[in-house]
Amino acid sequence: MPTPLPPPEIVAQRKAQARAWFEELRDRICAAFEKLEDELTGGPHADLPAGRFERKPWSRPNHDGGDGGGGVMGLMKGRVFEKVGVNVSTVHGTFSPEFRANIPGAGETGEFWASGISLVAHMRSPLVPAVHMNTRMLVTGQGWFGGGADLTPMFLDSVETAEDAADFHAALKAACDAHGDDYYPRFKEWCDRYFFLPHRGEPRGAGGIFYDNLDTGDWAADFAFTRAVGLAFLETYPRIVARRMQAMWNDAQREHQLIRRGRYVEFNLIHDRGTLFGLKTGGNIEAILMSLPPEVKWP
Amino acid sequence: MPTPLPPPEIVAQRKAQARAWFEELRDRICAAFEKLEDELTGGPHADLPAGRFERKPWSRPNHDGGDGGGGVMGLMKGRVFEKVGVNVSTVHGTFSPEFRANIPGAGETGEFWASGISLVAHMRSPLVPAVHMNTRMLVTGQGWFGGGADLTPMFLDSVETAEDAADFHAALKAACDAHGDDYYPRFKEWCDRYFFLPHRGEPRGAGGIFYDNLDTGDWAADFAFTRAVGLAFLETYPRIVARRMQAMWNDAQREHQLIRRGRYVEFNLIHDRGTLFGLKTGGNIEAILMSLPPEVKWP
Repeated sequence: MPTPLPPPEIVAQRKAQARAWFEELRDRICAAFEKLEDELTGGPHADLPAGRFERKPWSRPNHDGGDGGGGVMGLMKGRVFEKVGVNVSTVHGTFSPEFRANIPGAGETGEFWASGISLVAHMRSPLVPAVHMNTRMLVTGQGWFGGGADLTPMFLDSVETAEDAADFHAALKAACDAHGDDYYPRFKEWCDRYFFLPHRGEPRGAGGIFYDNLDTGDWAADFAFTRAVGLAFLETYPRIVARRMQAMWNDAQREHQLIRRGRYVEFNLIHDRGTLFGLKTGGNIEAILMSLPPEVKWP
Repeated sequence: MPTPLPPPEIVAQRKAQARAWFEELRDRICAAFEKLEDELTGGPHADLPAGRFERKPWSRPNHDGGDGGGGVMGLMKGRVFEKVGVNVSTVHGTFSPEFRANIPGAGETGEFWASGISLVAHMRSPLVPAVHMNTRMLVTGQGWFGGGADLTPMFLDSVETAEDAADFHAALKAACDAHGDDYYPRFKEWCDRYFFLPHRGEPRGAGGIFYDNLDTGDWAADFAFTRAVGLAFLETYPRIVARRMQAMWNDAQREHQLIRRGRYVEFNLIHDRGTLFGLKTGGNIEAILMSLPPEVKWP
């Protein structure tokens, strides 16, 4: 049973708190990524200038023509991060009738509010894993949190990948364990099931966690968990990048990376519900497709 | 109303004739493309060796585990054709129950037979249009032909593109006009509607023709039309390639080509019914995804 929403002024406070958090997290992640750009001294691209995020606000008309909120795209093309998008958005409106049936709590009026952060990083070095993270709060006739983070190393069987994946999972597990005994096993399994390419019979990467419709009845706890997921990402991913980014790599490793990225494209365009939902509901194309890798090969 | 199928021995003759044609057309197209590879004397890649097709047979288990036919993939990575796949297949079996409802004539037993040729060419030169062609014959409780061809120039507004598109359309129009007064306008419009990226609000390229469920009651005429479409392609596309392939191009033109190819990927993975149908019904992944460009950018 979904928890009944509290009075409107409380809902408004919660929305403001969540939005402020997602924007704060964006700022902290962007700062951490720019610091990595500054710290590069090795590898084939150390002579390039350090990258900086460019931010671009956008606004979204609701499907009925009214104001629908908007967001800020942040894009950096750097020497460590070949292409990284960090987007925040806070949108509201009414789902068009054909979408209402699929959204919890949206059946009656179709009204919704959603705020979140989403991030995809494609790295220059094939030795540094790509990564995805997003967390969000939704309000319809109900309210909930969702999100997750998953790591996509380019070489699935290497010692370094095992170390990076263990580090990434340990940080997420710690965030989970502090909020629910079953969170990590449930959300890890959900991630493994979601980020799977059935037509290839392959997982997308080394996994992570994925959760949705989180509404335990204790909003403060659910919000704290969602913050903890963001902080676990912020603690662990920059550390993984820092310890891999200075190494040289060769053309064969780069070629392998470009081919692995093809799997990422296949997943996002064929299977990813968020991408397809965005494209089919007239979302911001540039923000949605910012997740696509800068360069890809299907040889 | 679909035409009732003739006696089984006639159906068997038709299947054999269609299959033989698709394989003959494959041989003639591959020979024409290899000849273009031999004739390259200009452009940045004239020093590479002329490409040759490599053929690889595959077989397909039916979903119930029995024999389901198969095909031959033909792949060439050349100096004119960066990546071109020319596949023929002849498959048969029973559609799994969940697919039967969507297939004309498959409702009762789910039995089907399909034979066809499909081709996608991605060119090294951004000045040479990419192209797609496929024709096929289907038999369920009914029988029909389908297919089409469309041209994807990289620079939509150039004089050369206008000339190439006019040439391509003229050849297809001639094939259409010989078989039905309304064929060209109907099948051109069908192509324009089908090869459209709604999320970008863009056509995929310069169009061509697309037709499906063609069953006029005169099988010989429908088969002759399908042959004419293949021959129109064979007459016009190699001529377009020949007149564009010797020119030099620059990095900016190549970059533009790699970005335009991203649209091709988006179309194939998000919208193309053939691709998605193949992936979801356990088709040959390698043959289905052979259509993806060798190198792509989403900068």
